[in-house]
Amino acid sequence: MHTEHTAETCKKARLAVQDTLDVVGGKWKLVLLTILMHGKRRFRELSREAGITPRILSKELQEMEMNGLVSRTVCDTRPVTVEYALTPYSETLKEVLDAMEHWGQQHRRKIIGGS
Amino acid sequence: MHTEHTAETCKKARLAVQDTLDVVGGKWKLVLLTILMHGKRRFRELSREAGITPRILSKELQEMEMNGLVSRTVCDTRPVTVEYALTPYSETLKEVLDAMEHWGQQHRRKIIGGS
Repeated sequence: MHTEHTAETCKKARLAVQDTLDVVGGKWKLVLLTILMHGKRRFRELSREAGITPRILSKELQEMEMNGLVSRTVCDTRPVTVEYALTPYSETLKEVLDAMEHWGQQHRRKIIGGS
Repeated sequence: MHTEHTAETCKKARLAVQDTLDVVGGKWKLVLLTILMHGKRRFRELSREAGITPRILSKELQEMEMNGLVSRTVCDTRPVTVEYALTPYSETLKEVLDAMEHWGQQHRRKIIGGS
């Protein structure tokens, strides 16, 4: 991926790509990002819309919060509700997701078109 | 990710991103792509360099071949050897991998820098 290859730059590049894969990859991250792009959701709403058990959802949201992609707001209601929303920082993923979307589209055409 | 959101375009976008994740994600794809960027390799060399068992490597390479990223050449040697190399098509992934590398780098700085 570089014009200049050294073992060092190469390893660094691979780790950076892997970091991104860890943040957006896996079974649920993309599903949750997509739902939250439409607006904030309560925990129960997210669980139902995504079809994720509360236990797994809780873990996924925690990771996304740690990575700065999702904010968690405890609302002063009765009973207490917790709302999740995408942060402004999550928008920095746009370039990555766009590139993946474009490549995925052309790849599907290529594979279905026959090679 | 779009200025215009419909359930349909949104689902299509998510599937395209997922397709790309399926092609470059997982535990080994990126490792193998990185090794092969340095030049073609024999099966045994790949297995040793990547630290993958022959069984898993064989499955991974088959998927990469099906996706048009890797070519497989049986060499007329004794004993027969099989060489794997990246295809010209694999270069179309450059934009995706570059975007992931850049985001991963800035994300690491942000997370380590403290938020």
